[in-house]
Amino acid sequence: MIRFYNGSLPVEIQRDRISVVLVAPRNPLNIGAVARAMANFGFTQLRVVAPFAAHWREARSAVGAPDLLQGATEYATLDAALADCALVLGTGTRTHRKPEQPVVMLPALAPRVANELARGGRVAIVFGPEKRGLTREDLSHCHLMVEIPTDALQPSMNLGQAVAVCLYELARNTAGVEFTLPASVSPAADSGTLERLAHVIDETMTASGYSPTIMQATNRHDLRLLLRRMAWSEADAKRALGVFRRILWRLQNPGRD
Amino acid sequence: MIRFYNGSLPVEIQRDRISVVLVAPRNPLNIGAVARAMANFGFTQLRVVAPFAAHWREARSAVGAPDLLQGATEYATLDAALADCALVLGTGTRTHRKPEQPVVMLPALAPRVANELARGGRVAIVFGPEKRGLTREDLSHCHLMVEIPTDALQPSMNLGQAVAVCLYELARNTAGVEFTLPASVSPAADSGTLERLAHVIDETMTASGYSPTIMQATNRHDLRLLLRRMAWSEADAKRALGVFRRILWRLQNPGRD
Repeated sequence: MIRFYNGSLPVEIQRDRISVVLVAPRNPLNIGAVARAMANFGFTQLRVVAPFAAHWREARSAVGAPDLLQGATEYATLDAALADCALVLGTGTRTHRKPEQPVVMLPALAPRVANELARGGRVAIVFGPEKRGLTREDLSHCHLMVEIPTDALQPSMNLGQAVAVCLYELARNTAGVEFTLPASVSPAADSGTLERLAHVIDETMTASGYSPTIMQATNRHDLRLLLRRMAWSEADAKRALGVFRRILWRLQNPGRD
Repeated sequence: MIRFYNGSLPVEIQRDRISVVLVAPRNPLNIGAVARAMANFGFTQLRVVAPFAAHWREARSAVGAPDLLQGATEYATLDAALADCALVLGTGTRTHRKPEQPVVMLPALAPRVANELARGGRVAIVFGPEKRGLTREDLSHCHLMVEIPTDALQPSMNLGQAVAVCLYELARNTAGVEFTLPASVSPAADSGTLERLAHVIDETMTASGYSPTIMQATNRHDLRLLLRRMAWSEADAKRALGVFRRILWRLQNPGRD
C-alpha cells in the first residue's frame, strides 16, 4: 500500500486490488512492456482477455519476463474478467467517438480509485488491442472512461507506454521526501568564508592585471554581489579559496615551485 | 505553450524549449517509441548523441515514424548536445550508485522546469542507453538527477516508457492561470559557457601548479559538478571566464603587461 497526496487530499492506493486488463493484445513485445511497467510501479494483478494463443505463450516465456506474467489470469470474455470489480475504468481517446460514459482526465483519476478502494471494492483498468482500442461494446462494461491528455495531432498511444503512464499516475506522489541532496553536500558557506574568498579573488585579479586600480572598488563590490548570487556550500567555497591562494602565490612567485 | 497547476502553483511549460536527449540509443524500436511519446505529449525537439548509425537510420525510416524524427539533430558528444541548455536533467535510479547531483523526484519536477523556462533558458532531459543508463561522467553534465518513483524490486524502466512517463508529468495538469515572473531575472548560464569556464579554470589550475597530473581527471570531474551546484547566470559566468582568461594569460606570460 502506498499513501500519497493529490492536491491537499491524502489518499491511499492498494495496488494489489487494482487489476490491469488487456483485451485481445496481439504483440508479445507489447505484452512484455505492459508487464514491465506493472513491475516498475509495483502492480501485480494482470488479466488477459482472449489473447492470441501463440503470442501470449511467447510473451510469457520471454527471457526476463516479470514474474507477474506467470501469475496472469486468462479469460474468454471481458465480462468474465471484470466480474469481481466494483470500478471499471476504460482507456482511450475521444477522437473517434463520443463517449457514452463520464470521462475523467488521467491526472484527476487517483482520488476516484482511492475512494473505491476505501469502500472495499476492486478496481480494473482496461486497455484495448493495439490497433483499434476498446470498442463501444467493450466500453459499455466501464463506469468511467479515462483519457490521457495527449496532443490532438497524435492522440493514440503505444500500449506499453499508455499502461506505464496510467500506472505512474496511480503510483505518483508516494509520500516521503521529494527532493534529496547528495549525501556529501555540505552546509551553505558562511559570510566569513565568502569574504575571504572575495578578498583572495580580488588580490588575484589585481596580480594578474585584470583590474586597473581605478576599477578595483567597483569590481570588489560587483564580486561580492556575484559571489552571493551563487549557492556556495562551505566546502566548495573552501576549495575555491585553496585554488585561488595557489594561483595568487604562483602569480607572485613566477619562477619558483 | 501549455499552462498548468502543480499543487497550488500555476506554472508554464513551453514544450518547444525542452529537448529530449538520447545518449547512444541502440534499439530502433525504442527510438521510435521515444519519438511516439514525444508526439503524444506535444514535444518536438529530439537530440541524439552518438547513435549506432544503422539503427538510427532504421528508426528514422520506419513506417509511421513521427515527423520529429526527421528533424532530430545528431551530436558526436553529450557536451555538444547540451551547449545551449541552461538546465540539464539526467534520468536514472539510485540503485547502483550514490548520486553526486541533487535528486528531484519526477512528481516534483514541473515547477523547476517552469522556473528555468521563465528565466529564458532551454531545458534538456537526458536518457542513457538501454542497458546501462547514464554514466557518472554523463551525469556530471547534469544540474539535477530526476528519479522516477519506481518499485525497489524492478526499478529500471524501458527507455520508451521512461520517456513517456517523464513527458506526461511535464504535460500533466494543463490549466489556465498566468505565471508571473520577476522582471529583472538574468538568464541562466548555458552548458556551453559552463564547459568553457571549466576548461579555462582547469588550465589555470594546471598553470598555477595546483593540480599534479595525476589529479587532473578527478579535479576536472569535481569541477564540473561544483560549477553545476552553483546558480550561474550567463552574465556572471562570462565575467568569470574573462577573469580566468586574464589570470591564465598572466601565468603563462609572467614578465609581460
